[in-house]
Amino acid sequence: MTALAPLALTIGDPAGVGPELAAAAWALSDAEALLPFFVVGSARVVEEAARRRGITVPVCAVKTTDEVADRFADALPVLDLDDLPYTPGQPDDAGALLALNALATATGLVRSGAASALVTGPIAKSRLARVGFDFPGQTEFVADVCGITPEHAVMMLAGPSLRVVPITVHVSLRSVPDLLTVELIRSRAAIAAAALARDFGIAAPRLAVAGLNPHAGEDGRMGTEDGAIVAPAVAALREAGIDAFGPLPPDTMFHAEARERYDAAICMYHDQALIPMKALDFDEGVNVTLGLPIIRTSPDHGTAFAIAGTGTARVGPTIAAIRMAGECAKRRAMP
Amino acid sequence: MTALAPLALTIGDPAGVGPELAAAAWALSDAEALLPFFVVGSARVVEEAARRRGITVPVCAVKTTDEVADRFADALPVLDLDDLPYTPGQPDDAGALLALNALATATGLVRSGAASALVTGPIAKSRLARVGFDFPGQTEFVADVCGITPEHAVMMLAGPSLRVVPITVHVSLRSVPDLLTVELIRSRAAIAAAALARDFGIAAPRLAVAGLNPHAGEDGRMGTEDGAIVAPAVAALREAGIDAFGPLPPDTMFHAEARERYDAAICMYHDQALIPMKALDFDEGVNVTLGLPIIRTSPDHGTAFAIAGTGTARVGPTIAAIRMAGECAKRRAMP
Repeated sequence: MTALAPLALTIGDPAGVGPELAAAAWALSDAEALLPFFVVGSARVVEEAARRRGITVPVCAVKTTDEVADRFADALPVLDLDDLPYTPGQPDDAGALLALNALATATGLVRSGAASALVTGPIAKSRLARVGFDFPGQTEFVADVCGITPEHAVMMLAGPSLRVVPITVHVSLRSVPDLLTVELIRSRAAIAAAALARDFGIAAPRLAVAGLNPHAGEDGRMGTEDGAIVAPAVAALREAGIDAFGPLPPDTMFHAEARERYDAAICMYHDQALIPMKALDFDEGVNVTLGLPIIRTSPDHGTAFAIAGTGTARVGPTIAAIRMAGECAKRRAMP
Repeated sequence: MTALAPLALTIGDPAGVGPELAAAAWALSDAEALLPFFVVGSARVVEEAARRRGITVPVCAVKTTDEVADRFADALPVLDLDDLPYTPGQPDDAGALLALNALATATGLVRSGAASALVTGPIAKSRLARVGFDFPGQTEFVADVCGITPEHAVMMLAGPSLRVVPITVHVSLRSVPDLLTVELIRSRAAIAAAALARDFGIAAPRLAVAGLNPHAGEDGRMGTEDGAIVAPAVAALREAGIDAFGPLPPDTMFHAEARERYDAAICMYHDQALIPMKALDFDEGVNVTLGLPIIRTSPDHGTAFAIAGTGTARVGPTIAAIRMAGECAKRRAMP
């Protein structure tokens, strides 16, 4: 059996919390039983970020991912793209360029098989836009590199208690009802079902589909979309052999006993998915992109420029993202 | 010191789970240290419901609430309005009339001071409408009897982890943005603040006000209502000396650490309030009506006709509602 290729962790914006969290995750990699990973970014930035955080993290620059397995036990391997000073909380164009290069390089390494999964550190989209990045976010960039249209890259948030897939994401609440279509719900839920089977080891995933309205509309008394849009999408999924059910009253589908009945909740809007997710698993939710030919996870938080370098950023989400990427990679590697 | 008057618990629709849960709550009243209460309804129905549930609950008919204190230790006192057979799962007009009479009688007893708080059992609004009840729900009826306009009766859901006040309730998600006004948010939040001080012993309540849109709109990039409506409402509350803050990103305000910072969350719509409430405190959420001259709570579930008489309905919400009514009543009675 060939050993699994290491996981690639991008540094994110070097002025954000990405560098220190990469170092902090390595410091806990034994205790947390993480698979070997390497940072794509800047050895100097990671080294200085670790020192500022007050943790001892030997850093070793590597040229190829083949070196990672042997060195990981003693030092954090970094694929060193640029030698920048560490300026936490002060993003600049050089840092944005590094973040972009790291993302592109890491994605290529995973595409080629030299790394087994991609874990992306946090970037600031507005900063990257200044250096020529014209994607809404990292997800769309990665999808594009993989030859996947953005509509087919589906976000899932996964924590120990719950997995959620928001059908619409960063749009106003007012615009949600008119964005929902039978086909949008059907196709995203189908992508989620396939990914749960392939990467999460759930042979026949059970999808709980939330209604849009309170009480799922109560037979049209509180909105018509649940009958007109959500119910036909559920029917289409079932016709395709997917174990989907709903539309469910959104407020009663997230308690412990209800969660036993499904593997993922298909939600109609951002906060319907993220409110229960973060209420239950605040520090451990992982953002996973489904529908890609590669495995991609990320910690579910931003650059947090305001606290970068203060040592207060929590490493839990980064560890959870690395762990989940490793678990998915192992599953894909199974014969 | 005068003893506190007993709590009045209405039977709700006699074909629903109300009667058996009243009996089950009495059976646990010692273990749960509940204040003395009495049922307003039908002794025969409660007796038969207890037997069907397989619990031993002696029932005694009382004529006045003065008898309750002495008899409560040995039997469940029932103010006996009608002698009906128990027909779980089969609602009829006679039962609806009993539910309505029980509600009217109990409200009057609390208004008069003969009972110290009102705990309402579940009714089916459509059934009550058939016998002449023309209110949207029990809350509006009780408000009307108390001479309060429905706009000034504010729903709060309260559990061990969280208190939430939804500004809009049983309306379609699509209609929410246009229903929100600065004045609606301001007035309901102010009523909530006053009630938390008076009945919940929180001298200077801290109100966390949720945004409407994801990330509270992110400076208008995902909806304008947070800046145009929610923020001015928060400013008006602060000007009135109320410790309100927001609009907050809805998804990050319900985890354990965030909840430490406030006493109640003011939410813009039903599921924004009820999803986190039920995810965290499913079996213990109590519906409290704020802004009334009397104390009124209810268990946060419906008649559940489908499982009435099967013994599976959970008594937790009823016990929580009785306990919370008692705690509020004791606070109001304090000199």
